Formats: sequence, C-alpha cells, structure tokens
Amino acid sequence: MADRSNSASTGTVADGFERVRDLFDSYLLTDSNYSAQVAMYWRGQLIVDLVGGPGLDADSVSCVFSSSKGVAALVIGRLIDAGKLDPSAPVVEYWPEFGAKGKEKVLVSQLLSHQAGLIGLDGGMTVDDVVDSTAAAERIAQMRPMWRPGAAFGYHGITIGIFLEELVRRVTGTTLQEVYEKEIRAPRNIDFWLGLPESEDHRYRPVEPPVLSTAQLLDTEEHEFPSDSLSVFGSNNPAFPKESGLALSPNDRRVRAAGFPAAFGVGSARGLAQVYSSVFDWDGDPVVSKDTLEIMAQEQTWGPDRVFGNVRSFGIVFMRPTLGLQFGSVKAFGHDGAAGRLAFADPLHDLAFGYIPWPMQYTGYGVGADPKSLELSRLVRETIRQHA
Amino acid sequence: MADRSNSASTGTVADGFERVRDLFDSYLLTDSNYSAQVAMYWRGQLIVDLVGGPGLDADSVSCVFSSSKGVAALVIGRLIDAGKLDPSAPVVEYWPEFGAKGKEKVLVSQLLSHQAGLIGLDGGMTVDDVVDSTAAAERIAQMRPMWRPGAAFGYHGITIGIFLEELVRRVTGTTLQEVYEKEIRAPRNIDFWLGLPESEDHRYRPVEPPVLSTAQLLDTEEHEFPSDSLSVFGSNNPAFPKESGLALSPNDRRVRAAGFPAAFGVGSARGLAQVYSSVFDWDGDPVVSKDTLEIMAQEQTWGPDRVFGNVRSFGIVFMRPTLGLQFGSVKAFGHDGAAGRLAFADPLHDLAFGYIPWPMQYTGYGVGADPKSLELSRLVRETIRQHA
Amino acid sequence: MADRSNSASTGTVADGFERVRDLFDSYLLTDSNYSAQVAMYWRGQLIVDLVGGPGLDADSVSCVFSSSKGVAALVIGRLIDAGKLDPSAPVVEYWPEFGAKGKEKVLVSQLLSHQAGLIGLDGGMTVDDVVDSTAAAERIAQMRPMWRPGAAFGYHGITIGIFLEELVRRVTGTTLQEVYEKEIRAPRNIDFWLGLPESEDHRYRPVEPPVLSTAQLLDTEEHEFPSDSLSVFGSNNPAFPKESGLALSPNDRRVRAAGFPAAFGVGSARGLAQVYSSVFDWDGDPVVSKDTLEIMAQEQTWGPDRVFGNVRSFGIVFMRPTLGLQFGSVKAFGHDGAAGRLAFADPLHDLAFGYIPWPMQYTGYGVGADPKSLELSRLVRETIRQHA
Repeated sequence: MADRSNSASTGTVADGFERVRDLFDSYLLTDSNYSAQVAMYWRGQLIVDLVGGPGLDADSVSCVFSSSKGVAALVIGRLIDAGKLDPSAPVVEYWPEFGAKGKEKVLVSQLLSHQAGLIGLDGGMTVDDVVDSTAAAERIAQMRPMWRPGAAFGYHGITIGIFLEELVRRVTGTTLQEVYEKEIRAPRNIDFWLGLPESEDHRYRPVEPPVLSTAQLLDTEEHEFPSDSLSVFGSNNPAFPKESGLALSPNDRRVRAAGFPAAFGVGSARGLAQVYSSVFDWDGDPVVSKDTLEIMAQEQTWGPDRVFGNVRSFGIVFMRPTLGLQFGSVKAFGHDGAAGRLAFADPLHDLAFGYIPWPMQYTGYGVGADPKSLELSRLVRETIRQHA
Repeated sequence: MADRSNSASTGTVADGFERVRDLFDSYLLTDSNYSAQVAMYWRGQLIVDLVGGPGLDADSVSCVFSSSKGVAALVIGRLIDAGKLDPSAPVVEYWPEFGAKGKEKVLVSQLLSHQAGLIGLDGGMTVDDVVDSTAAAERIAQMRPMWRPGAAFGYHGITIGIFLEELVRRVTGTTLQEVYEKEIRAPRNIDFWLGLPESEDHRYRPVEPPVLSTAQLLDTEEHEFPSDSLSVFGSNNPAFPKESGLALSPNDRRVRAAGFPAAFGVGSARGLAQVYSSVFDWDGDPVVSKDTLEIMAQEQTWGPDRVFGNVRSFGIVFMRPTLGLQFGSVKAFGHDGAAGRLAFADPLHDLAFGYIPWPMQYTGYGVGADPKSLELSRLVRETIRQHA
Repeated sequence: MADRSNSASTGTVADGFERVRDLFDSYLLTDSNYSAQVAMYWRGQLIVDLVGGPGLDADSVSCVFSSSKGVAALVIGRLIDAGKLDPSAPVVEYWPEFGAKGKEKVLVSQLLSHQAGLIGLDGGMTVDDVVDSTAAAERIAQMRPMWRPGAAFGYHGITIGIFLEELVRRVTGTTLQEVYEKEIRAPRNIDFWLGLPESEDHRYRPVEPPVLSTAQLLDTEEHEFPSDSLSVFGSNNPAFPKESGLALSPNDRRVRAAGFPAAFGVGSARGLAQVYSSVFDWDGDPVVSKDTLEIMAQEQTWGPDRVFGNVRSFGIVFMRPTLGLQFGSVKAFGHDGAAGRLAFADPLHDLAFGYIPWPMQYTGYGVGADPKSLELSRLVRETIRQHA
C-alpha cells in the first residue's frame, strides 16, 4: 500500500489559515483511500481552496446529493424576495390540486421543511420522473399525508425535490433550474450546476460506493431496514413494494443533466462555497435579502426525525446545526449531503463553506456530513475569531 | 428439565409459508416455558394457524390486554362510516360535560390518540368502574389535563377505555361491547370477545406472570418507578395515592365478562387475525370503509411518549410501526398488548396477523409486543413478497 | 484526610422522619467535601431542617441559581390571581414592542415556558443589564425568534429573567423584586430574597466551583460546546461572539443585591421550603390560589430541549418532574438550579422542599438537581405515605 499513500493537498490558503491546510493534509496523509475538495470564503474572499487524494483535482466536479437542496433554497429565496411566493401561505394558493385528502391547510413553510407527511411516492419515482417531475407532482398531490399536519416532521429526502420544482413551475411558469441558471449561477460564474451542461461533463467524477471497514459494515447491518419500512420508502425504492436497488444515480447522464434539486446537483467544493458566499452583501448585490434569509433560516422544525429517528432541524429548505451535527455557529444555515457532503453560510463569522469527499465517505446512520468537515468548520471558525 | 421440553407446534400453514412454522417451532424447541398461538390471514385466507407449548391448545382463549384497543377501534370506525362520529369535531359535541377545566377544544381525534393529558383518574378505578365506566367518565370529565392540549402525548393505557366507552354510549345510546358483538363479531363468527360470554368461559386460560431471568429482574428494578409517579398513575393504582397492587385482573370473571376495551378483550390468536382480516374487502363487505381506515391510520402522534419516554406513534386508536417496534410495513396499523401480544392489518401485504403468547412474556420496559412476534411478522411479509 | 471527615448534621427532624436525617448524614460521613442545607415542610410544619459539612451553618445563605425562577413564578401567580395578567393572552397585550419580527402571536404562557425562541441576547448581557433589565428588554423585543412559535422549546436560562421582569414592570409599574418583597416575603418572614439586602449580606457564602473527579472532568470535556454554539449563547457569553468567561456572578455584590430572577436569588434551604409551603392553604391565606397553581403547573412543554437535548417539562415558569428528573410526584412543581439546587411543592403529599449544597455539586450535563436531593425527596414522600 505504501506506493499508494496520498501526497499533501494542492491549492491555496490565505495568510493566517494555514492550520486548515494542516488539518486537511493530516486526513490525506493517514488515509490513502481519502480524497476531497474543500473551499471557504470569508468576507467574500476565497481563503481556502484545497484538493487532495487519488482521482480528484481542482477542476473535478461531483454530485453533492442533498447538499443540492440548499442550493435550490436560494431560488425559493429569490421568489420570496420578489413577492411571488409567501412561505406563510397555504400550498393550495399556488398549487390547488395539492389540497386533496386533507392537505388544504398545509403551508408552504411546512411543505419545504419536511412537515407534509409525504415521505415517499406510492409506486416510486423513475428516471423520467426525475427528468421532469410534473407527473410525479400530480400523483403526490393525490396522496393522504402519513401524519396529520403538525404531528411530526421527517426527512422528505426525495419528494422535497418534487415540491421545490412544482412550486417554481406554478409561480414562475419556468423551471427551478432555469431560475437558478439565469438569476444566480451565470451572473456570478458559480462552479455549481442544477443540471450539468454537456460542456462541463468531461469534469464529472462518477460517485463510487464507500469502502467500508468491518465496524462500518456491522453498523450498516444493525441499521438495515425491512424493505417495506418507512426509511426505504423515503429513499424511493422505485418499484415499491417490490424490492430493487435505487435506480436513480447521478452517474446516469440523463439524471445529472436534469439536476433534480433534492439530490442531483453537481459542482466543485469551490462552487458550493461560492453559492453560499453569494448570500452575503459584500458587493451590494446579495442573491437573497438578509430579511428573507433570516426568515428561511428560522427553525420550522427541531427534534427527532420520523424517518431516521435522529435529531435534526430545518428552516425553509435549509438545515440548521444541532447538537449531533454542529456544522456551524448558532446562526449558520446550509445542508449536508449523503456520503460526506457539507455546505453552509455562517453569518456570525461571515463564512461560506463547501466540502466534497470522493469516493463517498461512510458517515453512519442518517447523517450526511463527514465528521472531518465538522472539524474543518470548527477550526476555521476558531481561526476567524482569533483574527477578527 | 428434559422431560418438559416442548414438542413442535400443531396446526396448519398454507403452501409456501412453511418457514413461518419452522421459525415458530424453533421458539418452542428452545424454550420449554414458552407457549403461544399465532394466526395470519392473507387475502382473506387463513395461511397460518399454529399453537404450541404447555397449557395451550387451538381452542384456548386468553386476555390480550392493550391489543383490545385495536379491536375497539373498529367500533369507532363503524361510527365514523355511519356519520355518527366525526373525529375532527370537539369532544364536547358528543360529551358536553367533558369541556370542564380547559378541555373545550380537545378533538375526538386527540382524545383517541393519547393527547388529552388525562393519563390517570384521580382516586383510581375499581372493578365496578371497569364493569360500567359511566361514573368514571363523569369524574374524568372534571379533571384538568396534565398538559395544555397539543403539548405532548402519552399512553392513556387505562383511561382511553373510558373515552371509548363514553363516546359510544353518547353517540349510540348503547354500549361499545354491544356494537362490537352485533355489527362485527357475531356476523363473522370471530373468535374474539369484548366481554367473554359464560358459554365460552371454559376455554379461558388465566394470565400468569412471566418467569423472569436474572437479567430481566435487574432490568425491571432499573425501571421501577416511585409509586407516586406518572407511570404508576397511568397504570391505575386504584387506591392512589396509597400503594396497592393492580386490583384489576382478567382472571376475575366480572372483569373479563365486561370486556373493558382498554385492556380486557379475550380470544384466540385466530380471533385477533379474523378481526383485522375483516377490514379488507375480500367479500365485498369490509367492517370499515377503506377511506375511514386511512383516516384512522393517519398518524396523530409520533415521538417520545410522556409516560414511558419511548418513541411511539398512534393514529385514531390504532398504533403505527416505529423504528423500535417495526411490527409491519409503512402502511400497517394495529396494536400491541402487555406481555407479548400483537395484532395488526397490513394493507401493503394484504395481511392480518394475531399472536398471543402464554404465559406472559417479559418484553422489557414500555413495550408490549414480543420480539418473536416481530420476527414472525417480518418473515411472513418477506414470504408474501416472494410469492406475490 | 481523616481530620477533615465530616461530622453528622445538626438541626431537627420531626418524629417519624428520622430516616431522612440518617440518609443526609450518610452523605456527610462519606464525603468530606460535601456540605448542604435541607429543609422540608409537611402540612405547614417544619419536619426537616438540617445542615452539615464544612463552611456552612444553619444561618448561611447562598445563591440558588435557576431555583430562583420558581420563586419568581409566585409573583406571576399573584398577578394572575389579581386579574392583571392573563397567561393565555398574547405578550403584546402587555408589551407592545415585543411584537416585532413575527412575535405578535406569542402568548404569555409560551414566553414563560421556554417556547419563544429567544435563547440568548445578541451581544450578551452585562452586570448593568442584570441590575436593570429595561434596556435588555428593548433589545430582545427586536430579535427574530430562532424558531417559529410552536416548533420547539429550549431552556431560556438567562433571558427568561428579562421576560419575568419586563412583564411585571409593564403590568404593575413596579419591579418583580418589590412585589416579591412586599406581597410574599416580608409578610411571612421568608428566609429567601430576590435581591439580598445589605443587612443579610454577612450571611452570604460565596459560590465556589465544584471539585471534579477524573470521570467528571472527562464528562465535562465530552460535553464541551464550541464557543459559538447555541448552548453557550443561551448561557450568556456577554461578549458574544468573542470568547470570555461568564461575567455574571452572584459573588459580585451588585449582582446578588439586584436579585435577577432567572439566576440570582439568595437564601437558605429553609427559606426555599418556606416559599413553597406558602402556596398551601394551611393558614387560610395561600400566596397563590389553588386554581392558578393548577394552571401554572399544567405542562406547557415536554420533551427534548432544543438547547441541551435532554428531556424536560415546564409549566408556566415552574419545572415539572420527568423520568430523568423525578424530583416529586405526578402532581409536583418547582425548579432545580445549577450545581445541585432543588426546591418544589408537592400537593399530592402536602410537601414543600428546599435543598442547597455547598460547594457546588457536579450534576452532569444539563441537569441542576443533585441526585442526593432526589433520593431525599423520594424518602420523605415514602415516609409521608406510611404516616398518612
């Protein structure tokens, strides 16, 4: 194995942030299977932009799974700022068909914070549904929620993508991906896409399953669910109730080209950090107003999650730090993603953060963010305090 | 002990379900103290009907404790179908006296899903109260809830029986037991009674306390509550606040003859499975309509229980599967019962399930269902998937 | 160490309660670092009044930290009884400025049960703010809640003191401390102050940090939070976001002279027990009516706490017993305090209880009451049952 040992990272860190590189290098030097990109902006300046490990370079882009949700959140924020979408209004105001089976009073803020009780779609979703969720939206509008509105919240890992897309379709007449591209990504040349264009596809690194240790395998088995359980239902077993693997993968070109906002955004860690840096007002043109961000970061839910049982907190789309996933300060908002992804903004520290490990990291049951990303976040926050 | 070792089970299993018998036999052959009945219907056909172990035969009936609640739920479902009871209406619409002490707005759906905050009855309940709960209903109507409506939910192990009986009295003018007998049990010749008649009493097997291992004794001591605690209050210490044993036992002929629906239904495992098979529409005459069942199975509560602290979920009367008690698929509803009982319907699999161990099984703190019943359920659901 | 071993306690116990003294003595005789006062009233009679250990005598007074909140609760109860404050009214009815940033509908009962989502004050509180919270009230009124009203509850360890003081100022035109002194303390000569007068200051024992064992040190480190976390925010790091120690200490004469009701009440254990004994109607003049106490003890919240993650329950200001902190019977209400304090009333047993250890006890993460106080409480409750 000696010949496969990692070198240190390449890339840049700003003066005073050298310890962040040291910590990142320590991961690379002790695990030859580990590779990752990490990037951070502080007060609009790129202070960390590092990459290391086999198979990955500064130009690589990868799928960030649920961290895509935090990117899509900014599109929702634009609509709120424009007065086109009111999070405190009932969903039926924009999407009348949604009112079926006792859902008339469900609010937009509830729908976008995992409170609607529509964890899975009966029958599952296919690649076609992910490329265009219009039909899936029609089907889910006819479902009865698993719980009375207000009784619980639980991670709508896949179906929240339907809600995000349908709301944008209804409110704007165009797609979430187009709004993101035109109003957010293109003007700032952000290295992150909801729908990876052909022109960037040569940079794509396919996601690969994590290499599991024996302890991790045992942990996985301990948390294995029956194939007819809620957890599997929420992960979209497309042929439910028949067993089958998860058919939806960003390694399928159609999937990553569509950029379904629940799971299939693609970019670099620098791109993710750019996304969150764009919410600050360094250049007089923040993507979303401070007031709207405050409203979206306000916790709509906190507590044990109906699907996974672990404690989480969500604002409108955004994830919030909790005792078990302390990714940022008391003021931070963002989103983790399966197999180690993490991205967030932290207004207390004027910080934007993006992290993508590759291959996928084993992060344990029901948690996306790599523990390494939490350590990197804590270190940079401490460093900023000493600086500022 | 060798001469006491169990034989294999007797009874029948349908072709293709032999592994269910193998699993059940493995329990019998490894534990000479174990005896149980297990029965299952699939698409209206009795696919498993087994009994084994000392002291029990196919004709035995026993008390199923809280699994009685799921049987009583069907009476509530009949009243909803008949338009006589609206679960979204306030309780006072049917029971005006209930409105005292800030309970005016408590809904029927809240009252029947352990949300009312009336965990115990001050002064406790006697055998007379269990035979006729009219006076107990008058007393509980005058209590102030332990929590503001909506603040929590907690298992109303005994008092939900008062609510069920009083609502049926108010709405129909007759008793819950009579509605069950006339509209549900007798027409289908179901081998399960809310109020065991004299004619069947010779089949009754008295409940006996479980034989505890040292580890189980220690676990019991660790979870022992002060006699003035909420948990004991909710279990109806009848002379509360003075100590005394639980005076209410189905081994008392008056108690099992009355069939108090919170705890004292009596029947066979086949009878329990018949109850839940009757909700399916195989013969064109389901006991309760599909729409009403969907409404009743919708989760009114989920999360840690105020009384026991463990995570549970309840619809209207029915219990729902949770991560810690995964008794059926994401679509299942039913109810466990103290000391190992379990019964449910699972619409995803067209399955009805009943299980009664005897003597009582030690199942640990705050859980009714025997882990063996969860294994039997999982095996039959997997078998059905391979079949179907 | 032999020469430092504690003697037994001094003080009195009523006939029949000798076992309480025996238990208390067992703590003193096995831990030479331990000292404490404990006092209890039963049906208006002082049945236990004990003190022991180094540095403490019957005349000593000490700061009880959060147990002060339960004392302040009685002032709120007086205002409710007088019809001046309605707990079910919105806060803005008394404090219009509070309505900013989406708080128009927050109820008094929510504000006083840790549901408002105003865990900390941006910028922190100084000694001046604790001496007069008027400016802090103006600042907190302009904050946006961390969660939507109803989404969670979490311990407002410091800021609830602002709410208590501001509500009393708005409703009465005078201070909470003056109402307490004139209407509650002075008429009954209670040995507990919100604002320790100069004349009693010679009795004050400074609080001292606990002596930690190795295991306790490790536990503390395991539960150490980032300095930018919610838990630190809620503990009022006054220079937030810059690190600094907690600047507010009752050992500062200005702080204990002001008697901020969230944390800085000072008295003896007998005084605490007197406070809670005054709620009973032994002399025909209870401090607060039975009906108001019932409303205040009704649980407004129960479940895991947003700040600490452990399960707690609160009525209006009062803390309620939970499985993890079973300080009294199902009917008890009171409040624990940092580093071991506990005080409560238990109407089921006609009991009032006060306990102050000194020096501070290590009680583990997020819990105030000393486990010894729970044992003493359980023993006296059992003894009363055998008596009564």
